[in-house]
Amino acid sequence: MSELTFMAPAIPCCDNPELKKSVQVHIDDLIKPKGSLGRLEELALQYILCRGSRNSGINKACLYTFAGDHGITRQKITPYPPEVTAQMVLNMLSGGAAVSVMCRNAAIAYSVVDAGVASDLPDHPLLLKRKIAPGTDDFSVGPAMTTDQCRNALDAGVGIAASTDADIIGSGEMGIANSASAAALYALFLDLDGKETTGAGTGASGALLERKKEVVSGAVEFHRREWDATPFDAVRRCGGFEIAQLCGLMLGAASRRVPVVVDGFICSAAALAAMRMEPGVADYLFFSHVSEEHFHRSFFEKENIRPILDLGMRLGEGTGAVLAIQIIRQALNCYHEMATFGSASVSRESRE
Amino acid sequence: MSELTFMAPAIPCCDNPELKKSVQVHIDDLIKPKGSLGRLEELALQYILCRGSRNSGINKACLYTFAGDHGITRQKITPYPPEVTAQMVLNMLSGGAAVSVMCRNAAIAYSVVDAGVASDLPDHPLLLKRKIAPGTDDFSVGPAMTTDQCRNALDAGVGIAASTDADIIGSGEMGIANSASAAALYALFLDLDGKETTGAGTGASGALLERKKEVVSGAVEFHRREWDATPFDAVRRCGGFEIAQLCGLMLGAASRRVPVVVDGFICSAAALAAMRMEPGVADYLFFSHVSEEHFHRSFFEKENIRPILDLGMRLGEGTGAVLAIQIIRQALNCYHEMATFGSASVSRESRE
Repeated sequence: MSELTFMAPAIPCCDNPELKKSVQVHIDDLIKPKGSLGRLEELALQYILCRGSRNSGINKACLYTFAGDHGITRQKITPYPPEVTAQMVLNMLSGGAAVSVMCRNAAIAYSVVDAGVASDLPDHPLLLKRKIAPGTDDFSVGPAMTTDQCRNALDAGVGIAASTDADIIGSGEMGIANSASAAALYALFLDLDGKETTGAGTGASGALLERKKEVVSGAVEFHRREWDATPFDAVRRCGGFEIAQLCGLMLGAASRRVPVVVDGFICSAAALAAMRMEPGVADYLFFSHVSEEHFHRSFFEKENIRPILDLGMRLGEGTGAVLAIQIIRQALNCYHEMATFGSASVSRESRE
Repeated sequence: MSELTFMAPAIPCCDNPELKKSVQVHIDDLIKPKGSLGRLEELALQYILCRGSRNSGINKACLYTFAGDHGITRQKITPYPPEVTAQMVLNMLSGGAAVSVMCRNAAIAYSVVDAGVASDLPDHPLLLKRKIAPGTDDFSVGPAMTTDQCRNALDAGVGIAASTDADIIGSGEMGIANSASAAALYALFLDLDGKETTGAGTGASGALLERKKEVVSGAVEFHRREWDATPFDAVRRCGGFEIAQLCGLMLGAASRRVPVVVDGFICSAAALAAMRMEPGVADYLFFSHVSEEHFHRSFFEKENIRPILDLGMRLGEGTGAVLAIQIIRQALNCYHEMATFGSASVSRESRE
C-alpha cells in the first residue's frame, strides 16, 4: 500500500486590490445609498474576486450531495439505522428529498455522489459513482480509512470539481453517523473535548446522545495521541468518505476559481479540514447557514466566520446551500443589472 | 370634509386546530428528521393556515413598492433631496432599481404605487396611480394628513389587495424622509422618545442625524399630547401616504386570506399600525428581515417577532421581501413535493 499522502492543488490568490477597488466603485455607483444592500454587496464582491473578472456572474449553479457510510454506526449512536444512507440516496435520485425539491425549484443542477455508501447503488443519470469502499472503518477503535483511501477520496473530490462547468458549486452530504465524524474533526482541529463538539445529529437525545458524546470523546482522545498533526491524518482518522471528498471538492474548486457554498455542520467540518490544508481556500467558501446542530454556532464564532442564514435548519443534504445560492445569485443580479447614478437621472446624496 | 374614519375589513381567524394538526402530521411525515427544516417548517405551516387549505401553494407572487413624499423634508433631515422619490419611481419602472432586478429574477410580478409622490408621474404599465396628494404635510408642525386623506390612503391599500390574484404579496416602499415618519409611529405606538426610534435612514449621520432626532422627537411630543390614542389618528398625524396605503394593503390582504411579506423598517411601522388596528392581521404577516436601520431590531425584540433574514440590508424598496418570498416558496415546495415516509422506503427513527 502506498503511503503517499494527498497533494492539495495550488489555489490562486483572491487578493487583487485593483479589481477589488473597481468592483467597489461600481457597487457604490449603483442606485442606492452606499452600503444599503449590506451582505449582498459583500457577497457580490467576494464572488467576483474569486472569479477574477468584473464581468463574472452565475450562469450555472450545481450542487452535489456526497453520501457515505460510517463504521462508527456499530457503536449504536444514531436514532436511524445505517441503511438510511442508501435509502436517502435513492430518494434524492428520485427527486423526493428536500435538497432535490429545492434544487429543482431553484434551477440548480443536482447530482449525488456515492463516496462510500455501504450497499451497491443502481446506475442513475444523477449519480456519480466514486465509492472508495462500502463505508469507513469504526473510528472509535482505529482510523476510519487507510492512507490510500483518504488520498483517493480527496482526489475524487478534486476530480469532481474539475469536471463541472458550473460558476458556483453547492455542497451537501448524507451519511448516517457523519455528525459524529464531523464532531471528532472539530475536536481534533480546535483542540477540544469531543463531548463539547458532539450534538444530536439526526435526533439523538437523552441516553443515546450521552452515549454518542462518550464514544466521540473517547475516539478523539485516542486519535489525538496518535495523530501526526497534519490535516490529512485528521481526515484519515476521523473523517468519512463523503467528508474527505467534500474537502477535495472545495480545494479543487478553489484551484479553478470556482466558489463553493458550504452547507451545514458536516460540510463545515470538511471546510475546516480544507482550510487547514490550504488556508487560501477560505476566500472561495461561502458558509450558507448556521445549523441548529450543537457547536456549529461556536465553530463560526471561534473561526470568526459569518454564515449567511440562520433558519434553525439541521437537515444537511445541501438544503442550506440552496437557499444561500439563491441569495448570492440575487446579489450578483443587483451588481450586474441595477442602474448606476452615472446612467440614470437620480440625485446623489447632498452631504454625507 | 367628512370626519368618517377608516373601517378596517374583517379578518378571518387563522386558528384552525384541525388544519394545523393535519399540516403538522404531513410535515412530520416528510422524509427528514422531525423539525430538521427549522423555520421552513414554521413558514409552510403559517402560510397554509393563512390560506385555510392544505393544498395551498404559491403559484403567483407579486410585490408592490408604495411611493410617497413627505412634508417633513422641509426640515432638512435627509442627505438626499426629495426629488429622489420620483426619480427612484422612474428607475423602478424602467427596471434598474434593486427591487426591480430582484423581482424580475425571482419571477415576482412587480408594480409601483404612486401613493403620494410630489410630482406628476407618467403613465406606465407597472404604475398604479393612487396619489392621495402631492406629498404629506410637515408633521413636525401639524398632522401629516387630513382625516379624509388618511382614510382614502388606507382604503386605496385595501383596494389594491382586493385587485390582485397573487397567493402572496410582497411589500416595499420608497419615500425620502419616510424613515422619520416610521420612527415617529414607533415612538407613538410603543410610547418611546422619538430620539430612541430615529436612525440614519438613507444615510443621515453626525449633525444631520442629531437634527433628525430632534425634529422627530419634538414632533412626537407634540402629537402625543393631541393624539386620540387610536391607531388611525397615529397614522394620520405622523404617517406617510405610502405607509397608510401599506397598512391598508396588509389589512385588505389579510381579510382575503392572502399573506403579506413585510419588508424593512418602514413597512414594519405600517405593519405595527395594522396590528394595532386589527391584531388578527399579525397571523398573515411574514417579517422578512431585520434592517440595519437603528431600532428595527429593538422593535422585533419588543414585539417578540422573529424576522426571517438578517443580512445587514437597509435599502427598503421591497428588497428584503423578495429574498424572504424566495425562502417561503422553498418551504412550500418542500411541503408539497417531498416524499413521505409513507410513500418511500426509508426507515424511520428506531427511537426518539
